[in-house]
Amino acid sequence: MTKKIEKWDYFELELRATAPGNPFLDITLEADFTHTDKSVRVAGFFDGEGVYKIRFMPDLEGSWHFVTHSNLDVLDNKSGSFDCVAPSEKNHGVVGVINQTNFAFSDGTPYHPVGTTCYVWNLQGEALEKKTLETLKEGPFNKIRFCIYPKRYTFNYNEPENYPFPGEVKEKWNPQHQDDYSPRPHDDWWDYDYFNPEYFQHIDDCVLALRDLGIEADLILFHPYDFGAWGFDCIPEKVNNRILKYLVARLGAFRNIWWSFANEYDLFQNKAIYEWDRYMKLVEKIDPYHHLRSIHNCRGFFDHSKSWISHCSIQSKDLSLIPKWFDEYNKPLVIDECGYEGNIDRDWGNLTGKEMVHRFWQGFSLGAYVGHGETYINPQENLWWSKGGQLQGDSTRRIAFLRKIIEEFPEIGFSLIKPTSPSFIRKTAGCGIYPEIGLHYFGVHQPSFKLINLPEDGTWQIDIIDTWEMTITNAGSNFSGLCRVDLPGKEGIAIRIRKN
Amino acid sequence: MTKKIEKWDYFELELRATAPGNPFLDITLEADFTHTDKSVRVAGFFDGEGVYKIRFMPDLEGSWHFVTHSNLDVLDNKSGSFDCVAPSEKNHGVVGVINQTNFAFSDGTPYHPVGTTCYVWNLQGEALEKKTLETLKEGPFNKIRFCIYPKRYTFNYNEPENYPFPGEVKEKWNPQHQDDYSPRPHDDWWDYDYFNPEYFQHIDDCVLALRDLGIEADLILFHPYDFGAWGFDCIPEKVNNRILKYLVARLGAFRNIWWSFANEYDLFQNKAIYEWDRYMKLVEKIDPYHHLRSIHNCRGFFDHSKSWISHCSIQSKDLSLIPKWFDEYNKPLVIDECGYEGNIDRDWGNLTGKEMVHRFWQGFSLGAYVGHGETYINPQENLWWSKGGQLQGDSTRRIAFLRKIIEEFPEIGFSLIKPTSPSFIRKTAGCGIYPEIGLHYFGVHQPSFKLINLPEDGTWQIDIIDTWEMTITNAGSNFSGLCRVDLPGKEGIAIRIRKN
Repeated sequence: MTKKIEKWDYFELELRATAPGNPFLDITLEADFTHTDKSVRVAGFFDGEGVYKIRFMPDLEGSWHFVTHSNLDVLDNKSGSFDCVAPSEKNHGVVGVINQTNFAFSDGTPYHPVGTTCYVWNLQGEALEKKTLETLKEGPFNKIRFCIYPKRYTFNYNEPENYPFPGEVKEKWNPQHQDDYSPRPHDDWWDYDYFNPEYFQHIDDCVLALRDLGIEADLILFHPYDFGAWGFDCIPEKVNNRILKYLVARLGAFRNIWWSFANEYDLFQNKAIYEWDRYMKLVEKIDPYHHLRSIHNCRGFFDHSKSWISHCSIQSKDLSLIPKWFDEYNKPLVIDECGYEGNIDRDWGNLTGKEMVHRFWQGFSLGAYVGHGETYINPQENLWWSKGGQLQGDSTRRIAFLRKIIEEFPEIGFSLIKPTSPSFIRKTAGCGIYPEIGLHYFGVHQPSFKLINLPEDGTWQIDIIDTWEMTITNAGSNFSGLCRVDLPGKEGIAIRIRKN
Repeated sequence: MTKKIEKWDYFELELRATAPGNPFLDITLEADFTHTDKSVRVAGFFDGEGVYKIRFMPDLEGSWHFVTHSNLDVLDNKSGSFDCVAPSEKNHGVVGVINQTNFAFSDGTPYHPVGTTCYVWNLQGEALEKKTLETLKEGPFNKIRFCIYPKRYTFNYNEPENYPFPGEVKEKWNPQHQDDYSPRPHDDWWDYDYFNPEYFQHIDDCVLALRDLGIEADLILFHPYDFGAWGFDCIPEKVNNRILKYLVARLGAFRNIWWSFANEYDLFQNKAIYEWDRYMKLVEKIDPYHHLRSIHNCRGFFDHSKSWISHCSIQSKDLSLIPKWFDEYNKPLVIDECGYEGNIDRDWGNLTGKEMVHRFWQGFSLGAYVGHGETYINPQENLWWSKGGQLQGDSTRRIAFLRKIIEEFPEIGFSLIKPTSPSFIRKTAGCGIYPEIGLHYFGVHQPSFKLINLPEDGTWQIDIIDTWEMTITNAGSNFSGLCRVDLPGKEGIAIRIRKN
């Protein structure tokens, strides 16, 4: 019987071969997957113990046929077929950009990223990783940023269970290097001609576990938080190219993958802008599924207008600049880092829960997507932002409340309303924008009322949202024309306007 | 007996004359005031009813002699003398700039402006003006911004009791003009060849009443909130020059005068940058006392680096830019407008009390001076920001608490501390600035601790300040070297570091 694969699930072909030489460098393996209407060539990869794999994500229902190509006879010209069937209920495909500044899945379902960050949750051992997945299952997040490499930094002094390359740490790490981003390669510690399949198999498992929770895996391919602990921030470009090809071959067929080329690209002292461009262009070229590609900054932004960048992944605490960024890039804005709720010493990690929620509302009401993180000190030093585990902050359930509101908007994306000036004497229309739906957030402002100019060709419902108390109060369902809406005169209030 | 005048008080010579023609245009009057060590020429002014006055503020103790010069015989060559005696306890002289970015009085007493705004409190009639002065007497403010001309704007639809020029409002104001800054001169309503002395006498009274409360009068010479109600924003330059000379002659001798050339200069559609420059340069030239000169913006800043501008009078809600502004201008920064506490519709007038206090602390801890305003709706529509009256907000008493802390700093101005990074493992010094005194404010951040690198050549007292609860808690009096300070882990906390 022909194997059945859901549309946007992945088909995996496993082949076995033993051959002299280095399977990572010496063996080529690809396959053509062919449907009545299209043909796709994908790369295979070596998965250790004589096992080669080819993964493929079909995006058309019906019968697919494949045939392999290899320089090793035993892997070459293998063929077969499978049936691609309708996706199951929770499978909407791959997230892509629509309407310039928003996201949707392949099947058209809107996707509003509500992300969190756990940089190396995937390198903490089974118990904590299980705990993290449980937390994610209960939480409001539908995207998570994490790294393929281990991280050395404050609150991150543990070693991973294994490493991406054969080799070992040969020198005790020198704490004096903390925060000094000078390149410290350790090419003699690792054999970069080989990958450690076990290490990458675990990344597979993590990505698939997230997929099953409906969470996009925003995978960080390079990060500067090494400080000489492993030298993985100094891997030569030639090796990086092989790693990227390997990751695309392994993970590209997983529908929930996003490629995040860097956390804080600008902290790397050994990579020029053009090197980043080359990595992104390489993946753009070899990824048959066109997963999203972004690059995240510490201070100055990368030039997000470049065509190989699908959306802006931003670090900034000043969300009032969102309209400027839209003007500049006209791409979806994902503010992956605007500070984290917590109580550590550093200012990026000690926002009040209220401020975290405030920034979420500020960003979402301006049409951007804001990301969460949490950095509360605990005795185990398992801070969510890096290691995952449990959440203890005040913002998470308010973010869940916001997500629900965002997802209730019937349209993809959402418009903004711009309330008019308050003059009691001005009756003129002509101020403001008149969408059929709108969300306006007042933040630290506490207006006791707003005058809103609505089109007179319909009636409108207005709800008052208390973003902290998580209440929605109907202010009236029959607004039209120039209206006065009385407001509670406290901070953290938003209004939602919907056409009847 | 020779008259005695306190140093920095004013001497006034009153002369009487009747003559044909226009006393404002046809009569010249000046006087030379001579002390052993210096001689100062000052202008006189016509005060109505045949009265001419010459005011002079002496800045040296001892005997002063004067002699007048006029083109009218009866006013010419009048002479006399007075004794300048030591100032009384609360008289510290004129505020000027010291140490590039701070202020002090003539006698060296530091002056930290803690200002408020009541744009036209002086044009509201006796009862409300008296109330305003009572409120100011109890409050924390030592500077107030107000206008010489009446104001038309939302919540400002009343007429003043009289006008600066002979004439009358000849047309009912058209509310459609609200917010339209197009020039609407009414040169045919007013006789700009004459001033109405009564109108200006009242400004004298207001400035002196403020002086007696220890409050600097930051007098706004031009503002754009006219909208055709009177056309005072469209007075011809030639007339404006006469008004400025008249104001300098009348008010210059009052020690608490500051010249604010505009509220929101950039909203005038009929004045080029060079016209503003000419006004400021004129006053710079004719004001013998060199009172402070500033010009306030709505959006884009005036170029505060020009030599005739003594300090930056800024409107901005983004106080994180303060270090940039210091870099750019190297002058005192007075953020006269960063939004007001209140609950009106417009975002500049509906900050929570907490946000107002937050902005005060944010600005002061960065070395700038933040100004207050209040815009709570009340049945009489007497909003403090414009008409004065009573205060009802939450910020005022917290601002009083802050003022007390600022004034307790023994030095002029105050330094900043920059706490080091929190790394548990880093023992190196070399981070941060090491003043002998410091104030650091954490705002929306809630660190549970901070590591601070103090010099090892002394011991230091650290206090934890709750800016909202207005408490000061000693965290220890014997800190030295690299120290950990435990903090309450809530928003709105500051620390103060003082050397023992």
